[in-house]
Amino acid sequence: MERIKKVTKDIPVIDREITKKTQEKLDNLTKPLGSLGRLEELAKQICGITGKVSPSLENKVIFTFAADHGVTDEGVSAYPKEVTAQMVYNFLRGGAGINVLARHVGAKVIVVDIGVAEDLKPDPRLIIRKIGYGTKNMAKRAAMIREEAVKAIETGIEIFNQELKNGIDIIGIGEMGIGNTTAASAIAASFTGKPVEEVAGRGTGLDDSGLKNKIEVIKKSLFVNKPDSTDPIDVLSKVGGFEIAGLTGIILAAAVNKVPIVIDGFISGAAALVAFKIEPRVKEYMIAAHKSQEGGHKIILEHIGLRPLLDLDLRLGEGTGGALGIGLADAAIKILTQMATFKSAGVSEKKE
Amino acid sequence: MERIKKVTKDIPVIDREITKKTQEKLDNLTKPLGSLGRLEELAKQICGITGKVSPSLENKVIFTFAADHGVTDEGVSAYPKEVTAQMVYNFLRGGAGINVLARHVGAKVIVVDIGVAEDLKPDPRLIIRKIGYGTKNMAKRAAMIREEAVKAIETGIEIFNQELKNGIDIIGIGEMGIGNTTAASAIAASFTGKPVEEVAGRGTGLDDSGLKNKIEVIKKSLFVNKPDSTDPIDVLSKVGGFEIAGLTGIILAAAVNKVPIVIDGFISGAAALVAFKIEPRVKEYMIAAHKSQEGGHKIILEHIGLRPLLDLDLRLGEGTGGALGIGLADAAIKILTQMATFKSAGVSEKKE
Repeated sequence: MERIKKVTKDIPVIDREITKKTQEKLDNLTKPLGSLGRLEELAKQICGITGKVSPSLENKVIFTFAADHGVTDEGVSAYPKEVTAQMVYNFLRGGAGINVLARHVGAKVIVVDIGVAEDLKPDPRLIIRKIGYGTKNMAKRAAMIREEAVKAIETGIEIFNQELKNGIDIIGIGEMGIGNTTAASAIAASFTGKPVEEVAGRGTGLDDSGLKNKIEVIKKSLFVNKPDSTDPIDVLSKVGGFEIAGLTGIILAAAVNKVPIVIDGFISGAAALVAFKIEPRVKEYMIAAHKSQEGGHKIILEHIGLRPLLDLDLRLGEGTGGALGIGLADAAIKILTQMATFKSAGVSEKKE
Repeated sequence: MERIKKVTKDIPVIDREITKKTQEKLDNLTKPLGSLGRLEELAKQICGITGKVSPSLENKVIFTFAADHGVTDEGVSAYPKEVTAQMVYNFLRGGAGINVLARHVGAKVIVVDIGVAEDLKPDPRLIIRKIGYGTKNMAKRAAMIREEAVKAIETGIEIFNQELKNGIDIIGIGEMGIGNTTAASAIAASFTGKPVEEVAGRGTGLDDSGLKNKIEVIKKSLFVNKPDSTDPIDVLSKVGGFEIAGLTGIILAAAVNKVPIVIDGFISGAAALVAFKIEPRVKEYMIAAHKSQEGGHKIILEHIGLRPLLDLDLRLGEGTGGALGIGLADAAIKILTQMATFKSAGVSEKKE
């Protein structure tokens, strides 16, 4: 916990002077003032985070954390639990959605087993840092003990710091874990106070009766555990997941290292919400890539105060929407650093 | 006109069998059914257009047409008229927004002078096919005579066919022309019947009095010319522009050659609207990249029945939003062609 406190305390304040300089630079480029809209906002945010007026986004990294959830015993997912491990192998072979979209935007995918329920075959491309073999069934008891949640966050911080040695200019966060929209829903309900019916969705494809059961299971989990919304680690440990905790650590470590963080969908959003509750300043380091089809995602983003860039009805997770968000961030920085100025191009400025 | 009629008549019907096969292929990929939302829709649309279940989008081309507008005499733009020519030189040097974003998505930019008011220096990268030295002031008389509008459309068709020899798998359309949001607004008002106040916006940055004047000028242009909304060429010639007409030709030529067309902002939208009025079937070949900050753009897209992919408050034109749309189309096709199937990856399918 000391490590988390230290990292949290050290997150720097955004450099407003750099943001201002970036605005001036943008206003000299050959385009009507502000005409690239949110791309310009994005460029300013990234410059403010990194403290550079010409930042490089060469090293793009997506952290995809995988873990299992004991709550799948309650029949909350349309897919069987073993899919978590199967999809990790798919990530390692490069055949999943996240692999395709990460390649599309030139990002590296770091796959982490932070709590898959089975022992995975060793692979040089897989980081195995299990906190446990899946969480406990939160409908019956706490998903984790407090020490596990802390350890999972610290593991995220360590993994970020390890990868930082290879260079990281921007990150996306993603996840895989059958049952994890149930955990994300419980986290969202705990922190935002919204009814479970509003934060829970169909996940990978539940039918009406499946959704009804999922809502009951989430309500039961909240009743059994009574997470304390003023204590983020309490919420995370009681109704969270190992991958959500690990990504919370990634977010905190990225912020302290002035690295922009692109949030993916609902589960990544839940990790963002936990990080925001631990330290609200982390919000300024976050870029919301898209608005998921899971209704709870919108509630989380509004609660933190983030406006998503894309609205493509995505609900896959893994970091896929985050990859597309990284592509837009890249475009924004290229605009800032590659466009000609009115002066250099000999273009007349706006009439007075 | 015979050429336009021939092209229009030959636009093929979308291949629904291919669309169905694409859906089956998507449903076998390692992701919950439909979980990549609009990317999946986009992949299906592109397959339907091209008639291929594994289309290539290797050759991406953005056509950026430039022309001047006589209506700038009425003070409808925040920028002086000479900016049109200056920006063409900027395009040729690679310093404009469209150059940066086209490079970002791997697209080639074809710059066409279809009616800039001054003689541009010859450049091997510039296609000079002037219909005139800018249009006439539509607040006083028709912007073009009917034969000019027809010639501009046919010129667009010819330019597309010429470039087709180098290979074209997908196109974006863009434009440059000081004063052209005024023309686009007049076109939108003519075809949709919406009040000028709703379709006209601040363009490159008019203040309140500038916007008021622009609205008056558009109203006057419609009153003076009385464009016949049942005759697309009449509307185009009376209150359009050479670049808008040229892009209309590009759209028709792309459709007849089964090439997906990514529409950029308000002016590209006006060209799309003219093409749609000439032949409604062309709609199925169109992909709306984004929703511009110019209110008239939304009205045009809704009138045609297109849902924009992005909402980034862009209002630059040139094809910039279209470039980002091409990037998403590329991502969609990579999903379709590069992801593993449940069978190949050994991943369990959804529970029955």
